Amino acid sequence: MTQQTKNIDAVVIYSGGMDSFTVLHKAIRAGMNVYALSFNYGQRHSKELDYAANACKKLAIRHETVDISSASKLLPSSLLTTEDDIPEADYAEDNMKSTFVPNRNMIMLSLAISYAVSLKAPAVWYGAHSGDHDIYPDCRPEFVHAMNQVSQIANYDPVTVVAPYLTQSKADILQDGLAMGLDYSETWTCYNGQELACGRCSACRERLQAFAINKTLDPIEYA
Amino acid sequence: MTQQTKNIDAVVIYSGGMDSFTVLHKAIRAGMNVYALSFNYGQRHSKELDYAANACKKLAIRHETVDISSASKLLPSSLLTTEDDIPEADYAEDNMKSTFVPNRNMIMLSLAISYAVSLKAPAVWYGAHSGDHDIYPDCRPEFVHAMNQVSQIANYDPVTVVAPYLTQSKADILQDGLAMGLDYSETWTCYNGQELACGRCSACRERLQAFAINKTLDPIEYA
Repeated sequence: MTQQTKNIDAVVIYSGGMDSFTVLHKAIRAGMNVYALSFNYGQRHSKELDYAANACKKLAIRHETVDISSASKLLPSSLLTTEDDIPEADYAEDNMKSTFVPNRNMIMLSLAISYAVSLKAPAVWYGAHSGDHDIYPDCRPEFVHAMNQVSQIANYDPVTVVAPYLTQSKADILQDGLAMGLDYSETWTCYNGQELACGRCSACRERLQAFAINKTLDPIEYA
Repeated sequence: MTQQTKNIDAVVIYSGGMDSFTVLHKAIRAGMNVYALSFNYGQRHSKELDYAANACKKLAIRHETVDISSASKLLPSSLLTTEDDIPEADYAEDNMKSTFVPNRNMIMLSLAISYAVSLKAPAVWYGAHSGDHDIYPDCRPEFVHAMNQVSQIANYDPVTVVAPYLTQSKADILQDGLAMGLDYSETWTCYNGQELACGRCSACRERLQAFAINKTLDPIEYA
């Protein structure tokens, strides 16, 4: 006799980068029926979003992209303009503040929670991790806890915010993804939208560091 | 000797309707240097937004409108389509659920908080009131309290969510506005975008009821 179980619906915030790619696969392996959600917030290039679309197509899962680029008029961030150079150093607070979209995670979570309510999905998953705690206040456990509190009461149906890697590092996430057999050539990390990843921007450096810690070669080509 | 004081900056969520119009004026009278923020979320018509723009022009205050209509693909609401008729009864939970955009206040507040962080403004004002408590979970005091908690820690600078009419009714708001000498012909309430307000939709009925309670004639013309 087989038991029929209905998978639980979950919205996964999925940028196309390596962290949310791992979260997406983790949610699927946890038995979730996932709805991937990406955001166009006025990034300089759409390579990450192209990678997100391709990965979802391959997985045959539903993928929506919400355009919130109109909000860029409110956001003084170098990620959203072409005037300032992108920082080329390792991640560090001073450096990254210039690429920080204020309140970005609350904006994305609020839209993801809206989507979850529409779907009657009880959860939203996203890829906050401990490597960002010092840089982004909205990646910290206390933020996720407070979002969970408000998300329980903001609508008729409560929605839980799940951040499976909240207390782990980017290298830990990669370790988990490699153990799942994931192919990170399906992800895009570089801040620059060239044919090949630059290997020099802070995002590339952080990615390469995570692979180095895992003593694994990054499968993508660098310029 | 005169003392120079710098006004405190505040973002005011301003739809062009009578409640947020009153909140806008209340913030100005409280000495705030206000930045009005409207949202285009895929409404059937833009009359409310036109009224908002005109009122801000008259007040010579800055006014931004953020387009989040792309999110409408996530939101199954009759306000956002032309397929369903708009309810023509008095406000009642069953009736209004069909016009409810899930999590709308969290979405608007998250963008307003982002704007406040950009401006280094310590507060966001919005027009939640007790008349909506039974219908919209995200107009209730516990929601505002929880949003305040997360808004304190989501960014480097805390932002406070101010809802000056949280425990008052729509009629109370109107009473306060009339006492301030406000001209409600500068506001638009009707769900239908005709030349004249219909007087029959639930929004018109609620408006007319508030004027009746205040024993005052609504200055706008009805069809």
